[in-house]
Amino acid sequence: MSEKRVITLITDFGDKGGYVGAMKGVILTINPCCQIVDVTHGIAPQDVEEAAFLLYNVYSYFPADSIHLVVVDPGVGSERKSLLVKTKNYCFVGPDNGVLSFVLLRSEYKKVWEITNSCYLLPEVSATFHGRDVFAPVAAHLSRGVPAEEMGREGKDFVVLKDVEPEVSTGVIRAKVVYVDRFGNLVTNISRDLFTREVAERPFKVKVKREVIKKLSRSYAEAGEGEVVALLGSSGWLEIALKNGNCQKALSAGKGAIIEVYLS
Amino acid sequence: MSEKRVITLITDFGDKGGYVGAMKGVILTINPCCQIVDVTHGIAPQDVEEAAFLLYNVYSYFPADSIHLVVVDPGVGSERKSLLVKTKNYCFVGPDNGVLSFVLLRSEYKKVWEITNSCYLLPEVSATFHGRDVFAPVAAHLSRGVPAEEMGREGKDFVVLKDVEPEVSTGVIRAKVVYVDRFGNLVTNISRDLFTREVAERPFKVKVKREVIKKLSRSYAEAGEGEVVALLGSSGWLEIALKNGNCQKALSAGKGAIIEVYLS
Amino acid sequence: MSEKRVITLITDFGDKGGYVGAMKGVILTINPCCQIVDVTHGIAPQDVEEAAFLLYNVYSYFPADSIHLVVVDPGVGSERKSLLVKTKNYCFVGPDNGVLSFVLLRSEYKKVWEITNSCYLLPEVSATFHGRDVFAPVAAHLSRGVPAEEMGREGKDFVVLKDVEPEVSTGVIRAKVVYVDRFGNLVTNISRDLFTREVAERPFKVKVKREVIKKLSRSYAEAGEGEVVALLGSSGWLEIALKNGNCQKALSAGKGAIIEVYLS
Repeated sequence: MSEKRVITLITDFGDKGGYVGAMKGVILTINPCCQIVDVTHGIAPQDVEEAAFLLYNVYSYFPADSIHLVVVDPGVGSERKSLLVKTKNYCFVGPDNGVLSFVLLRSEYKKVWEITNSCYLLPEVSATFHGRDVFAPVAAHLSRGVPAEEMGREGKDFVVLKDVEPEVSTGVIRAKVVYVDRFGNLVTNISRDLFTREVAERPFKVKVKREVIKKLSRSYAEAGEGEVVALLGSSGWLEIALKNGNCQKALSAGKGAIIEVYLS
Repeated sequence: MSEKRVITLITDFGDKGGYVGAMKGVILTINPCCQIVDVTHGIAPQDVEEAAFLLYNVYSYFPADSIHLVVVDPGVGSERKSLLVKTKNYCFVGPDNGVLSFVLLRSEYKKVWEITNSCYLLPEVSATFHGRDVFAPVAAHLSRGVPAEEMGREGKDFVVLKDVEPEVSTGVIRAKVVYVDRFGNLVTNISRDLFTREVAERPFKVKVKREVIKKLSRSYAEAGEGEVVALLGSSGWLEIALKNGNCQKALSAGKGAIIEVYLS
Repeated sequence: MSEKRVITLITDFGDKGGYVGAMKGVILTINPCCQIVDVTHGIAPQDVEEAAFLLYNVYSYFPADSIHLVVVDPGVGSERKSLLVKTKNYCFVGPDNGVLSFVLLRSEYKKVWEITNSCYLLPEVSATFHGRDVFAPVAAHLSRGVPAEEMGREGKDFVVLKDVEPEVSTGVIRAKVVYVDRFGNLVTNISRDLFTREVAERPFKVKVKREVIKKLSRSYAEAGEGEVVALLGSSGWLEIALKNGNCQKALSAGKGAIIEVYLS
């Protein structure tokens, strides 16, 4: 097993405080040869759902054998478990709060461990920062080739986020905005597959706030200036966008906003 | 050719969403040995001009053979071309929207290709995220030693930004703020060379909003507390700053604000 | 000495402008094999005290032989000295403005040099950006094995921050908020050691604004929703937090806010 494995980081720590830095220090002390990759530290504070979507959007672009470390952890210090998950190509390390739920639900092959072996944690585990004291050292030891089995006991249970799938009924899909990107584009939980299957060639209306959109655009560029468009975005979700503008601001519609697709 | 080549990233993706992460994943999957360097992801959304200046300010500090990847791309999905540029020491990859124009205009030796060879792109190219599907894989293949000639057809045309040079007439230089840094310093498009040549030893007045500055300071430190100063900044542009304060806020003068230099 | 040494970066440059990028370019040009680690660029502009605390919180998590580069430098271009410090396990490079003072005061073994040897700086040193022209090249040369002695003359003097220790008198500790993290948690300058020693088993009241807290929590999770709690945070400082909320906003208490601990 190569020592040069990639460890990606997804957190809600932002660029304030030493949290990210401390995690990186812990990882490099255990495995100076691994490659740490900042995916994002800009998850909204404590927003497990946003992190779960974002992880799901990006993890498969990384080299096989990468280890994905996700720390959005409002329950740190409580009874919530610490998870290690292996799928066919990747490892995932993070709190058992739903942040890994898309990966878990949609991977055919998977094995789940509860992290319990204190040999692979920092000697002193704080009650408030398992990113540094639990998840970073476990990821680093994994990247050196310590087998997942060593980290704890195999389990089958894990927390799964609720209310993340759109409600599909005759003639209407009821969905929501799951995150807003930096451009103010509203990313919904309607997947390309769902949209394609339900809408097919039929006419439709996408409704968000007072805005009604009747066609699917291919790109931001093909829209008219100031036009609100719906498109199947690059991560595979239906997205509402405003050409060269910020759709979130224009519609006052942020995370959680209701999106309805009416089919004729 | 070494495999350990540097690929730098300049984008307007901020620290939100998985855009930067997906690009890094694509690059590392193609070349696990390259060194990805985040220059900045904080370009103002869709601000091609800011990115063009910033790239020009930093590219030459990197090791020879580095590949600079710039993704500020409001026209993605339209007919705009994808460019690969080689200068004496560097490669540049990005959309043909002017973001490379300073580098192109001011490099003596250069060769330009339009990226057309789909062998070096992701198998499926989305209409909204060429950073991941086009530019990242091309940069990664370049870093492995694939020759630029392989990527597409050589071209001569490329988009150049307009209105980026100050207007110089007798007795006055009319310029503008091209970006504002994190300290609120106003960076103008008056280069050290231009200023030195036009002003020479003559008295001058720099006018920005209601503020008039009559001398050039050497550093922020030598100014008085609360004083607005003009100086030739570290990147080689005339800069308006406020000691230990935020000049942008103090003068309500952001990007695009007019700067005039009157010569006696 | 390995060439693969870690160089960490702590700055107040944010994600705007090319400052961080230029520093990275300079470092990689001198030592393409070192490993650059972004700790944070989110120090509040010119806030030397915040940077000093943050450095102190994270530096010891990094591998022995790491080089810590700190650039928060409002006095750049003035007479302030440039420092290189060696402790038992680490090197530190930065301006002599107090940013290294915790590390200096609390390390048993240390040696201090004033950086004066221009051989190891960029050929042209600007008056406004020593991060790029002085500190980055010195750190890079150190990482290649150039001995610290080469960089300048040994010194004993260095600037130490004032007013960073809490005032302890009979029955009360008067302290302050030294930084606020991304969650709005208020981190104070009361260390775990001080708190434990002074409070011991006695009853106490922590007062911040109108809020009075009478017990120490172990984690954020154990608090009630909307409850303001005091806890000994993961970096070893007394912290005031609001469960799943932003304490800074809730109490209108930011950096510098007074914290008093009353002992019975």
